[in-house]
Amino acid sequence: MAAVLVDFRGFRHNVPVSIFWNKRVSSLSPYVPGEQPRTEGLIKLNTNENPYPPSPAVVEAIRSLVSGADAGASLRLYPDPVCAAFREAVALRYSVRPEQVFPGNGSDEVLAFAFGAFFENVPGLPAGENPPPALLFPDITYSFYPVYAGLWNLPFRTVPVGEDFSINPADYCVPSAGTVLPNPNAPTGRALPVGLSGESSGGLCSIVEYQLRHHRVVIIDEAYAAFGAESASSFIGRYPNLLTVHTLSKSASLAGLRVGFAIGSEELIEGLFRIRDSFNSYTMDRLALAGAAAAMADSSYYDEINKRVIATRERTAAVLASMGFEVIPSRANFLFIRWKDPGSSPVKNNGPLSGAALFRALRERGILVRHFDKPRIAGYLRVSIGTDPEMDSFLEACEEITGVKPGHADY
Amino acid sequence: MAAVLVDFRGFRHNVPVSIFWNKRVSSLSPYVPGEQPRTEGLIKLNTNENPYPPSPAVVEAIRSLVSGADAGASLRLYPDPVCAAFREAVALRYSVRPEQVFPGNGSDEVLAFAFGAFFENVPGLPAGENPPPALLFPDITYSFYPVYAGLWNLPFRTVPVGEDFSINPADYCVPSAGTVLPNPNAPTGRALPVGLSGESSGGLCSIVEYQLRHHRVVIIDEAYAAFGAESASSFIGRYPNLLTVHTLSKSASLAGLRVGFAIGSEELIEGLFRIRDSFNSYTMDRLALAGAAAAMADSSYYDEINKRVIATRERTAAVLASMGFEVIPSRANFLFIRWKDPGSSPVKNNGPLSGAALFRALRERGILVRHFDKPRIAGYLRVSIGTDPEMDSFLEACEEITGVKPGHADY
Repeated sequence: MAAVLVDFRGFRHNVPVSIFWNKRVSSLSPYVPGEQPRTEGLIKLNTNENPYPPSPAVVEAIRSLVSGADAGASLRLYPDPVCAAFREAVALRYSVRPEQVFPGNGSDEVLAFAFGAFFENVPGLPAGENPPPALLFPDITYSFYPVYAGLWNLPFRTVPVGEDFSINPADYCVPSAGTVLPNPNAPTGRALPVGLSGESSGGLCSIVEYQLRHHRVVIIDEAYAAFGAESASSFIGRYPNLLTVHTLSKSASLAGLRVGFAIGSEELIEGLFRIRDSFNSYTMDRLALAGAAAAMADSSYYDEINKRVIATRERTAAVLASMGFEVIPSRANFLFIRWKDPGSSPVKNNGPLSGAALFRALRERGILVRHFDKPRIAGYLRVSIGTDPEMDSFLEACEEITGVKPGHADY
Repeated sequence: MAAVLVDFRGFRHNVPVSIFWNKRVSSLSPYVPGEQPRTEGLIKLNTNENPYPPSPAVVEAIRSLVSGADAGASLRLYPDPVCAAFREAVALRYSVRPEQVFPGNGSDEVLAFAFGAFFENVPGLPAGENPPPALLFPDITYSFYPVYAGLWNLPFRTVPVGEDFSINPADYCVPSAGTVLPNPNAPTGRALPVGLSGESSGGLCSIVEYQLRHHRVVIIDEAYAAFGAESASSFIGRYPNLLTVHTLSKSASLAGLRVGFAIGSEELIEGLFRIRDSFNSYTMDRLALAGAAAAMADSSYYDEINKRVIATRERTAAVLASMGFEVIPSRANFLFIRWKDPGSSPVKNNGPLSGAALFRALRERGILVRHFDKPRIAGYLRVSIGTDPEMDSFLEACEEITGVKPGHADY
């Protein structure tokens, strides 16, 4: 494992601190993404990539720019700064207008801009309030959120999720500087209903309506929504403070192309453009723009492969549960699991089967999953859904590690 | 022209201000890049793109990822977050180590990170100093620098360039919070010697040495250096406070691929990675990484096409000067020019031939150049160097507009 870590950190110098860094950089705790191993032959279930290739239409759209008589010649020219074709394709897919779509270099970049645009010194804070309302997000969630807060120096308060990792919308109907919620949540996979106002007062819309009355923005991070959660994007027209954030990395099998987008009111989208255009006028290259537009247009291909991912998830969840794993109900392309009694081993004379121990045991068998060494979730693993054969190998490894056979012969 | 402007602003909503924007976004004055027209048939000399296509090796590297049996399959996986292959190629080309190279989504992104990493609250500021030393850059320079300063809320002071647009290094050997200088400068094209300490006390190194004694970072923006200026990157090993910033948009004909990089000491590079990894872990996609590495490796192709650009620049400059234009000596892939007496027209009974008038007259003839409506340079135009036939059309248009024939028949 040491070798892999060295591999991953390759070309990064061990600099603890430098006199040339400013306070921001010295105090940052950067996000650490899942390992991208350069070793071949591993089963990679650690960064929630889609196990199926992107749509042939995507590949063809890119290939057409580097084939034929003028192959690659257009690369000498800057890309379209307003990303018209891609935004039109998103607008068509989500039944919104192109002006309600913001394009970006992955949803991480879109989120970074959104944190920088909407969550600091929001006008209308009650004067003299002490402490002022902070930015809200769950304690168990995408671990990039506190990093963005650090980047832009935003005060934030984490809201504890329930014992079963459920999110209670009422917890977010309080004074805030803004709210960020992923739906489904990561790394738990749990989803909330969006909730039409009046129909389901417990849904996400109740938060959006409360925060709208206080002129605060609510970001719903829908990175994994295509795997079984509702999208809040259909409420964009009703709530000018609602921004949904999307990525092509998971449901469109394009993690390698770096494309994401946000959907929101024209004023939120223009706010994102203002910060983008003060940072980098062209964040998406010509190849990514062409591929992304083609992906948006081919929903039938993606509906098909994502149905397969969902089916594999449900089957894997059932087998794991039958073996004695706790499996959090997931609407994403991953499972959040724990051995039911992590303090002891199911195998005689072995040590505890903690999250870290299970992570290592899988790693030794060539299977890479994600373990977060953090309070409340250190006992758990996040397991991306791979192909059926990959999940069979994963389940066989689990059987070998735990010594427990599944309760039924469904794999 | 109105139609083109509408085109360019297409999909941007006219939102003067929103209650949901924070103070940063409300107060920003975003950078406005040169027009990217969707109209065909224009001669585009307005954004300093290279008139020649990228290297065939670049096109082949990209095509290989979207061809063959597994075409495009790798796009489902995240790219290499440390960008090893591209950084190795840059290191080889510039005789530095990969750890001294920072990769980015265009040099604009690299600059945005550098402004955010090195120029705020630098430790070691003399206590009680009032006002504290500010960030320094020229008054006539790349107009994105003050925008970055606004993004990160950095106090800055602009240093006037000379009447002939020359930069005096001594002006930057003063207490500062850091210094940013393009070499060659934009939009003037003027270059400074880098200057070995002891040999040329007037070169850029004198600034770097002075600022090093005060623990301040100096950024040399070398976007246009390949067209005739010296690179300061060979001094990276000597000065830990020196960062050179490079782009593949101009000299590598890859504006459409969005690739840039910085070269500097390990501690500066690690500072950039810390801010990048708090913003977006993967800023370069798989296609851009492959193409960029191939571009770095094919210096013979690029030396060849850039020699042609330089030759065309020199010929165009000579013809313009013979017609009565003031032409600032350029080491870049553009010329900064002015009609010698912009207050009157060379054509009988016509109005003044101001920069704006010349811009419009060229635009009417289908030739797009850049005009900056700013003090000191409103009389000038920045004209990118195109192919020889494109520059011939440009010169013919100038002849038609001014009614003045060139002094020799060299075109």
